[in-house]
Amino acid sequence: MTSTAGDLLALISAGAATTRADLAKLTGLARSTVSQRIDALVERGLLEESEAMESTGGRPPRHLRLATDRSTVAGVDLGVTHCRVALMDLSGRVLACVEDPIRIEEGPEVVLAHVDRRVEGLLAETGRTKGSLEAMGIGVPGPVEFATGRPNNPPIMPGWNEYPIPDHFDTKVLVDNDVNVMALGEHRNAFQHVDHLLFVKIGSGIGCGIIADGRLHRGAQGSAGDIGHIRVSGHEDAGCRCGNSACLEAVAGGTALARRLTELGIPAESGSDVVALVQSGNTQALRLVREAGRLIGEVLAGLVNFFNPQVIVIGGVMARVHEHLLAGIRETIYRRSLPLATHELEIAPSHTGEDAAALGAGILAIEHHLSVANVNRLVAGAG
Amino acid sequence: MTSTAGDLLALISAGAATTRADLAKLTGLARSTVSQRIDALVERGLLEESEAMESTGGRPPRHLRLATDRSTVAGVDLGVTHCRVALMDLSGRVLACVEDPIRIEEGPEVVLAHVDRRVEGLLAETGRTKGSLEAMGIGVPGPVEFATGRPNNPPIMPGWNEYPIPDHFDTKVLVDNDVNVMALGEHRNAFQHVDHLLFVKIGSGIGCGIIADGRLHRGAQGSAGDIGHIRVSGHEDAGCRCGNSACLEAVAGGTALARRLTELGIPAESGSDVVALVQSGNTQALRLVREAGRLIGEVLAGLVNFFNPQVIVIGGVMARVHEHLLAGIRETIYRRSLPLATHELEIAPSHTGEDAAALGAGILAIEHHLSVANVNRLVAGAG
Repeated sequence: MTSTAGDLLALISAGAATTRADLAKLTGLARSTVSQRIDALVERGLLEESEAMESTGGRPPRHLRLATDRSTVAGVDLGVTHCRVALMDLSGRVLACVEDPIRIEEGPEVVLAHVDRRVEGLLAETGRTKGSLEAMGIGVPGPVEFATGRPNNPPIMPGWNEYPIPDHFDTKVLVDNDVNVMALGEHRNAFQHVDHLLFVKIGSGIGCGIIADGRLHRGAQGSAGDIGHIRVSGHEDAGCRCGNSACLEAVAGGTALARRLTELGIPAESGSDVVALVQSGNTQALRLVREAGRLIGEVLAGLVNFFNPQVIVIGGVMARVHEHLLAGIRETIYRRSLPLATHELEIAPSHTGEDAAALGAGILAIEHHLSVANVNRLVAGAG
Repeated sequence: MTSTAGDLLALISAGAATTRADLAKLTGLARSTVSQRIDALVERGLLEESEAMESTGGRPPRHLRLATDRSTVAGVDLGVTHCRVALMDLSGRVLACVEDPIRIEEGPEVVLAHVDRRVEGLLAETGRTKGSLEAMGIGVPGPVEFATGRPNNPPIMPGWNEYPIPDHFDTKVLVDNDVNVMALGEHRNAFQHVDHLLFVKIGSGIGCGIIADGRLHRGAQGSAGDIGHIRVSGHEDAGCRCGNSACLEAVAGGTALARRLTELGIPAESGSDVVALVQSGNTQALRLVREAGRLIGEVLAGLVNFFNPQVIVIGGVMARVHEHLLAGIRETIYRRSLPLATHELEIAPSHTGEDAAALGAGILAIEHHLSVANVNRLVAGAG
């Protein structure tokens, strides 16, 4: 609304302006005021200005763009058994990435110390200084109070409840649920033009990240998208760890499928085992996965009527057998949802795949760092 | 971002600025530029300026506010059997309101001619000129393509399919689904401080208006909130007019309840009849309404997990017996939704009641008229 340094940066970042003259014209600010603010942004490492180019006459304009060589962010994807760290520049380009096995149950001190080492390693590897790291985003496998970065009774992260993750780090850190950052990563990388998107993660459990009007919808308590405990019909006998029965995740999650296969005499411990069985041609596993797709489709059919998304993306470990899952999901959505809502609906496997969470966490950090309020704070601090 | 006349108006409308000096300070614009833009806004009937007040020294500042005596909007609530028209000023105050019985099935020419007469009558009654009417909002009982204002296969509006409602009028007209405008009216009047709200209309059918981050969420095709056809468990025998079975509205809508009462030997034709029976103490009607509440609650429990709203408002004809409906709704939501999402959830009957749709339609018109793009267009046109 007003034309602060942060607003000017946003205009450049959005591609609405590339020169000081553009900015003066767009905002109505005096040329001298624009220059003062741009100088501060360049000084602070947020913008860079190209060398003057040849011009047909007059003073050649210098082009402004986001500074990509002075500032970095890290995107961290913490899973139950893996940690992936991506180092990115402010344009969202991945400079380097590394993944290791971890055990989240070892608790925050151990796991976050590992993150520290990996971030330092990536900075060294790419020739960036520690001071260049402006912000980090971290996706964790459980509910988080986004404002404080504290996990909120996460069922599969023992020792992490209420732990203030950002306090562990020297830099600004944003923490969010893994499904939320996956939705953000997928949206910004593959579906930027889409306003309303659902990212459904089907792993041990089942969760959903919601993009409404281009932005993450976290809801009133940050628990939006928790679809794993929506009731499905005809499964009253299936008890769930939440204390209810007939929850979607208790009948269609990777862990539930592994248990049912084991009961059928086919040993399986996890969603990955189920995926391996399907890939090896086990017909019982195949049947269960397709039936799981129908149950997931039943829940999604209701959400399609309610939310009317343009795109539903299927991700998570189980998405490795997406052709079988998608068959069941599509079948039920097209049968149960209203034609107006399904007519142009796209239901697709994730484009960003295993990278979704790390990319999305990095984007969370970038979007915070470049937000108007933060840029104004940075520039005021520098000045 | 930039500081156009529209931006200046928005700052005043939001209460961020009340004087020209405030605006110059907030935007960084030259005082003369601010004055030029404010003069244009006053000229165009959008702003008014108070007389200079006594001051302790120097030139006394004049206060700017939305012009309330030169511009009006109309909010129109079209139902199957009623038409309510409210004349409002730009601040959202209702100047006059009238309701008549109509039959929507008489088609657009007849019904919209009635709207014309009522709007003219209200303008005359309040001493406003026809030229003062800047915009109209209309809520209709069926799906609408919002961008064009054409009903999209509305099941209970014979003769209206694809009819370009805005073309009937000389002024700017915005048309939306009745549940959407009800959600907007309720939110802006009773829950302005709430980010995420669901307005559930329980009448002949069942629908939902969604406020996400303070704004109406219409979805990709504008069909968001169509929850009447979400499947409920245990009612596979209940066929629905949509062609599926076990749809929420086929078992819990007012029409469905009236039919079931009739089957039990208690004649009822509509939701209003069911309401009258409950109010007269009929125990069968009471039992059915409470059971309907549980079924609605089952669907809403899933939506609470998915959307995590702060408030769910229950409106529509059946809300006249909200104490019985709410008992069933609350019971099921608290049993089936996640504690994190229900802990601070408010479930309440509508505050705006029968006025919700007309108020919301008027607000739709006001928010369009005062939007930055429209204000800039108006001012450019005047200048």
